[in-house]
Amino acid sequence: MNQQASNPSAPNPRAGIIGGTAGITASLAGVQVEVFDTTLRDGLQVEGVSASVDDKLRIAEQLDFLGVQFIEGGWPGANPKDIEFFARAAVDLRPRHSTLVAFGSTRRPRGKVDDDATLRHLLEADTAAVCIVAKSWDYHVTEALQTTLDEGAAMIADSVAFLAAAGRTVLVDMEHFFDGYKHNPEFAMRALEAAVVKGASHVVLCDTNGGSLPHEVAAVVADVHRHVGGDVTIGIHCHDDTGCAVANSMAAVLAGARHVQGTLNGLGERTGNCNLTTMIPNLELKLGARCLPEGHLVRLTAVSHHVAEVLNRPLDPQQPYVGASAFAHKAGLHVSAIARARDAYEHVDPEQVGNGTRFVVSEMAGRATIQMKADELGLAMDGPAVNQVIDDLKRLEHEGYHFEAADASLELLMRRAAGWEQDSFKVESMRVITDELPNGDFTTEATVKVWVGAGADAMRHVHTAEGNGPVNAIDKALRASLGAAFPELDKVHLTDYKVRILDGSSATGAVTRVLIDFTNGERTWTTIGVSGNIIEASWRALEEGLVYGLLHPVG
Amino acid sequence: MNQQASNPSAPNPRAGIIGGTAGITASLAGVQVEVFDTTLRDGLQVEGVSASVDDKLRIAEQLDFLGVQFIEGGWPGANPKDIEFFARAAVDLRPRHSTLVAFGSTRRPRGKVDDDATLRHLLEADTAAVCIVAKSWDYHVTEALQTTLDEGAAMIADSVAFLAAAGRTVLVDMEHFFDGYKHNPEFAMRALEAAVVKGASHVVLCDTNGGSLPHEVAAVVADVHRHVGGDVTIGIHCHDDTGCAVANSMAAVLAGARHVQGTLNGLGERTGNCNLTTMIPNLELKLGARCLPEGHLVRLTAVSHHVAEVLNRPLDPQQPYVGASAFAHKAGLHVSAIARARDAYEHVDPEQVGNGTRFVVSEMAGRATIQMKADELGLAMDGPAVNQVIDDLKRLEHEGYHFEAADASLELLMRRAAGWEQDSFKVESMRVITDELPNGDFTTEATVKVWVGAGADAMRHVHTAEGNGPVNAIDKALRASLGAAFPELDKVHLTDYKVRILDGSSATGAVTRVLIDFTNGERTWTTIGVSGNIIEASWRALEEGLVYGLLHPVG
Repeated sequence: MNQQASNPSAPNPRAGIIGGTAGITASLAGVQVEVFDTTLRDGLQVEGVSASVDDKLRIAEQLDFLGVQFIEGGWPGANPKDIEFFARAAVDLRPRHSTLVAFGSTRRPRGKVDDDATLRHLLEADTAAVCIVAKSWDYHVTEALQTTLDEGAAMIADSVAFLAAAGRTVLVDMEHFFDGYKHNPEFAMRALEAAVVKGASHVVLCDTNGGSLPHEVAAVVADVHRHVGGDVTIGIHCHDDTGCAVANSMAAVLAGARHVQGTLNGLGERTGNCNLTTMIPNLELKLGARCLPEGHLVRLTAVSHHVAEVLNRPLDPQQPYVGASAFAHKAGLHVSAIARARDAYEHVDPEQVGNGTRFVVSEMAGRATIQMKADELGLAMDGPAVNQVIDDLKRLEHEGYHFEAADASLELLMRRAAGWEQDSFKVESMRVITDELPNGDFTTEATVKVWVGAGADAMRHVHTAEGNGPVNAIDKALRASLGAAFPELDKVHLTDYKVRILDGSSATGAVTRVLIDFTNGERTWTTIGVSGNIIEASWRALEEGLVYGLLHPVG
Repeated sequence: MNQQASNPSAPNPRAGIIGGTAGITASLAGVQVEVFDTTLRDGLQVEGVSASVDDKLRIAEQLDFLGVQFIEGGWPGANPKDIEFFARAAVDLRPRHSTLVAFGSTRRPRGKVDDDATLRHLLEADTAAVCIVAKSWDYHVTEALQTTLDEGAAMIADSVAFLAAAGRTVLVDMEHFFDGYKHNPEFAMRALEAAVVKGASHVVLCDTNGGSLPHEVAAVVADVHRHVGGDVTIGIHCHDDTGCAVANSMAAVLAGARHVQGTLNGLGERTGNCNLTTMIPNLELKLGARCLPEGHLVRLTAVSHHVAEVLNRPLDPQQPYVGASAFAHKAGLHVSAIARARDAYEHVDPEQVGNGTRFVVSEMAGRATIQMKADELGLAMDGPAVNQVIDDLKRLEHEGYHFEAADASLELLMRRAAGWEQDSFKVESMRVITDELPNGDFTTEATVKVWVGAGADAMRHVHTAEGNGPVNAIDKALRASLGAAFPELDKVHLTDYKVRILDGSSATGAVTRVLIDFTNGERTWTTIGVSGNIIEASWRALEEGLVYGLLHPVG
């Protein structure tokens, strides 16, 4: 029995595999890998998202704060809003770490570079670096562009030469490179060489249709590296159509690429682009590469959440490294074991990426879990208070509550057990009426009677509001009553509302569980309400969400 | 210029890479790779989901319909609900393709197999195959189990021998195998051999903490394959903590694994398990392996959506292969180019997995599907009626309807397009009032005004009913009005009620989708209602459910 080897923080050097859970050895130690973020261009192709110029400027600030090398801001030749973005960025954005990049394409077939509108817009964006897309799959040259392969290569060569002569750093996105290489490797290589010989700083191999697998990417990148690795930086740009965008990008880096294109949170059309919030910690923590400025990796979770917020697109809790569930443990009896040796149960230390370990509390929770949760919340809890929480959890989970999913309700429950009382407001009564009129239209109105403040100073407010539906109407009426006293509630928004019937067999007579997600732009939280009455359950969750918002104001 | 090679459907054999975009060559052509689904055990560890025994049985039916080799149903030793699942599955589930598997663990340290409660429960589940988890990281044996490595190996050997002697096929999940191998490869291999020599059919290498990368998995699996590849089937079980669960599993298969464990839609704790809805098409369409029964891959999208529905957990539209956005093109001018040569723009044909190309601006309609559905329902539909259905579907799905999950609403829509009119009853108006009294109690009452019968014979009924909540009150009031005329409605019961908010960003002001499941004891059906008002959406679904019940009375 080898006691030394049984310590998880001491990897066995004999294993011959990269790293232990804690250590990093291996091939990329100290190697610089550039991060090129295209959230503002390719990322915004995702269905259902649209961003204003203001939104884009806020995201660019976050990207610079994170410290990526390149921020691709948009396509000024294709989108007038992007022209405005570059104009305002030139004035308002003062990047400390990042280089702003304008995106465009090669010149038109059979056209000239000096009267090409796309190239002109690209120069007018006035960025130090530009990235142009070039066709490297012969089929797309002959069919989509309806021109010859000779002209396809010339379009690349002319455009790179023109932009380089104008003093720009020129990156070339080789569109459909992997498919092109599979069908006609000679033309794919010729397209690439056209860019290299005319002075491109980077050739970026794009898996545009996203169908490649890691072993294919590794083989193609290794071949490209053999051809032009000494003359140019090789980049990789992957989409997630096989669920392998990150793995494909890792394979490319291990085969010689030194520049990775992707988006925050994997935003992008279809299945999304390579998720940089996964890729960056994989490269830094697993392979020892350098991507962000020293000490910046810890900003990753905050930046990821901030960008999700700006785009009003909830972050997937299951997202690696930065998601709310990424380091959540349904621990039960094992909590104390985890506390003793985190690295035996977590693949990295979550604090390295600005996330944290979370012990998911459920009715199975023991005293240790509750105590750890209290510590996490900064609550002083004595033994009786902990016992009170355990009793409350058991009783409420039996009724159908499910605190695992409702962090804010759990916190309020624990605070109450520790002696805290909510004294901001007190609801006297509530009524909501829904009518279907003979013409088939529906109307809903809610009336809420509330005492604002505590004790002798409390003021009674009565407000009625109409809404699309009952929850909307109640929300409006309650905010109308509280708004003057608590302006900070203006920042609190509902982002999702979920309903689950707990005992299907009695259906509309059964117990209803409502979960509501809230945000104030800085943090997100979830509350729960359970009742036989969906209105009551929604109302309980709504009220707790606002109480939590008052407890944790912005700033 | 090579015109032959510029045809995207004719891969260039010189490329030396697997396949072209259209073809498949390569190493796994015709090789069988087993699929082991653990949605019902590991998958249900995902935060915020809880499934009833009924839900689990419905999911197991879907998995068998898909045709996976193994369905892991639960852990009867740890969860009383899972004991009930196996008892009911033995009676109600008649799998045609899948083998049901009960999950457990090795015997206790320093215990005996024949008085071990976990092993007893495992046998009592009465499945042909069992899967037990075994510790293969020395640290977890000495620290978590507080025993010696000798005893750790004996626990595995004894348990496998005991279960094999009881006639079970024994799969062994080697927990923390990759971390164990990195820290103490001798013990990891010894744990593995203990299982193999005692007759395990499979040893499954688990990346329990999810921190591995594909090149590491490939190296470890290749080493295991050299040691025991001839004696046992090697399996792989990955989690997505590095965003590489699918890629890691692919790497394992390419290195010799022939059994893949994962979950539908990547459900699972933290970042989730290997997503089988991505993994299966990767293996079948990209590498030519055989996973599902011939012709079953086309069921993948429907099964994925069905399971998401049962668990009331929206499918990520960006999910590879099966997501709503997976083959969506923001095509603009390129629609006709895409239509001419799909394989130049799509990495696989979406119909192979039961999904479809979607042009985000103009939705593609399926006449053939509608005609097939009409035939299935025994409805005579001419061309204009089919066109009417397609138009209605487009409009309603744009509003948020989703007929895939609502068979009864689809049937009613199709009947209406074919000229049918519902003349059993007509609602004049409806009102529902919910009050919170100062003592905190809630009351709800609904009033419904209905004309029963058609034309001159129609009778007006006005009924008020109290209920636990608004939907319950409406249901009671409507039934009070209809009951005398339609006694068959007594047999119609609501079995489930699900609510989903479609546009999280506007939360309580957003569109609400309600699905209600009904049964009359003989058949079950589902209806849908969509509205900004949850009461209206519920009411539409409720009314359609009763109409469907009248159309299809028992008997």
